[in-house]
Amino acid sequence: MKRAYNFSAGPAVMPEVVLTKIQGELLNWAGTGMSVMEISHRSDLFVALAEKVERDIRNLANVPDNYKVLFVHGGARHQFSMIPQNLISLKPAHISAQLITGHWSKMAAKEMGLFGKVSVVADGADLNYMSVPDVSTWQNNADASFMHYCDNETLTGLEFKVAPDSGSIPLVADMSSNIFSKPIDVSKYGLIYACGQKNLGLSGITLVIVREDLLGSALDKTPMMLDYKRMSDKKSMLNTPPTFAWYALGLIVEWIEQQGGLLELDKLNTQKSQYLYDFIDRSSFYQNNVDAAYRSRMNVTFSLKDPEMDASFLALALKENLHFLKGHRAVGGMRASLYNAMSFEGVKTLVAFMTEFERNV
Amino acid sequence: MKRAYNFSAGPAVMPEVVLTKIQGELLNWAGTGMSVMEISHRSDLFVALAEKVERDIRNLANVPDNYKVLFVHGGARHQFSMIPQNLISLKPAHISAQLITGHWSKMAAKEMGLFGKVSVVADGADLNYMSVPDVSTWQNNADASFMHYCDNETLTGLEFKVAPDSGSIPLVADMSSNIFSKPIDVSKYGLIYACGQKNLGLSGITLVIVREDLLGSALDKTPMMLDYKRMSDKKSMLNTPPTFAWYALGLIVEWIEQQGGLLELDKLNTQKSQYLYDFIDRSSFYQNNVDAAYRSRMNVTFSLKDPEMDASFLALALKENLHFLKGHRAVGGMRASLYNAMSFEGVKTLVAFMTEFERNV
Repeated sequence: MKRAYNFSAGPAVMPEVVLTKIQGELLNWAGTGMSVMEISHRSDLFVALAEKVERDIRNLANVPDNYKVLFVHGGARHQFSMIPQNLISLKPAHISAQLITGHWSKMAAKEMGLFGKVSVVADGADLNYMSVPDVSTWQNNADASFMHYCDNETLTGLEFKVAPDSGSIPLVADMSSNIFSKPIDVSKYGLIYACGQKNLGLSGITLVIVREDLLGSALDKTPMMLDYKRMSDKKSMLNTPPTFAWYALGLIVEWIEQQGGLLELDKLNTQKSQYLYDFIDRSSFYQNNVDAAYRSRMNVTFSLKDPEMDASFLALALKENLHFLKGHRAVGGMRASLYNAMSFEGVKTLVAFMTEFERNV
Repeated sequence: MKRAYNFSAGPAVMPEVVLTKIQGELLNWAGTGMSVMEISHRSDLFVALAEKVERDIRNLANVPDNYKVLFVHGGARHQFSMIPQNLISLKPAHISAQLITGHWSKMAAKEMGLFGKVSVVADGADLNYMSVPDVSTWQNNADASFMHYCDNETLTGLEFKVAPDSGSIPLVADMSSNIFSKPIDVSKYGLIYACGQKNLGLSGITLVIVREDLLGSALDKTPMMLDYKRMSDKKSMLNTPPTFAWYALGLIVEWIEQQGGLLELDKLNTQKSQYLYDFIDRSSFYQNNVDAAYRSRMNVTFSLKDPEMDASFLALALKENLHFLKGHRAVGGMRASLYNAMSFEGVKTLVAFMTEFERNV
């Protein structure tokens, strides 16, 4: 059977060669006569795998030595409470600065408010989250313990081209939907996190890269599983980690290296998204309203001239093997997620279909 | 390659037919041309899968209608903080009653103490956790919000044959290592939880069965992802759940039904463990010290007459394709975990090896 073109925002398309490798060794991993799912996380073999994944990530993203690389349970939303429980005490005022640019950063700000005061740096609500308020209007707060933002908002498709300036306080970035899609200068951040199900494989695991001097200040009632320091001291094996997701994440990192690393992926991701944006901009039938300076390379949103046609667009797309193009229910319209594992061929197939659809309207 | 005999305490052996099914459909699940790992949890197909797994569990364990069945991120250790955050407010005194019978229930009591006072019902420390203090000595506490215990302690291999009596307060059971190994009378419990990696497949998911009238009392600062009520209101899809682990859990529940359900598994599990205990009891070389009334059917621990022989025992066992027999580092000796997916043939092969090892000493 032909593989589908999967434009889902997450869980999302994975590289076919990675899936084929998982399939091939599913009952007999590393010659053990066991599935990797069945292997104790305390076994030498699994520990070696876990350490290799960490090393590969350090190499891939050039992670400085004073940063810890953690693999934790759950998704990005768990980080919304884990981050303040660990970092809010870094300054006595217990304030988190929040740069709000869409659905996810807004939700994060609310949840982080459970554990301290919130100081809004800027909020793009008046811009319908189609752009980011001009930097000149930002209200920085030097008393805040950290500044949180979302590097790529998936609902609207709004992405930062460069890291925002957090002044003197640590910058905390939700990179759930664009991690490893381009080079990262980790040293600009206090903490970076990304859930698995976009560019890292499976849901249920979250990668956290954190500067080690920020650890050790968790609030008194922080559960052990939510304490980065305790997780770090046990190399992310305080309890049984999500071993299969960790293994798959490792295969994906290997695959990224095989593609030529982050620079090559950045080129390809830019080409893929530009191809689609150029088509949309030339068309008078399709429309994307995101400020060009912030257009996401990962999630390209677009609306049809007439929303009445949405259903038939989606139904005909399916016939062309183009899946999960429906926009998020909070936004409407369409969304094509073009994560690392989406091929240029997939994007071209989509544009060909969109051309044909418009012609036949 | 021959499948290994895997006696790991967790992640643990899974049924071979389940692994084969996962392998077969890994790149093309349900005719979608996609892996189940790549499918949006909001898609009709995945929602149908998720709902079927819940129905199957309700049928398998005869779960009453006034109980919710939840699938949450993380392992049992996450429940150690999630439970008190949700249930401690059920009574104004904010006390949790704790029946301590080994490593896990002791750790749970400590962690639950972060969110309220702890009232110890009984502690088997003086018995080296080889038995449970006599019920006549238990200090029940009617002011406690709930009573927590561990139905099967994996380190020593100590299992309750019947649910302990918690008096008038809700009973909360850690069934991580013996769930679905025998029939359960769910109505005796306020809450039952079990992590995935023993009898339910993959690590990174935890099954929670909770009486619905206990929900809705979460502490003020409970993170959204740790609030059972919010999880329940969203049918465990408040965020992206660990979809692959959920899918695998479903296949395992189907497999249990195919084995004849919980009554049949109970018979087989009793036979398997009894076969090994009988051999140990007849031997003067191997020893198990757990009170016969509490011997676990899931984790059979034993020591060799001379601990100096442990290394050679383990090395020779490996040559017979018998894996992960080393006891937990906190206890020493050996441990054979005989979860649902361990065959009687595996146990017989182990006993044959143990016989031979003793003969050659």
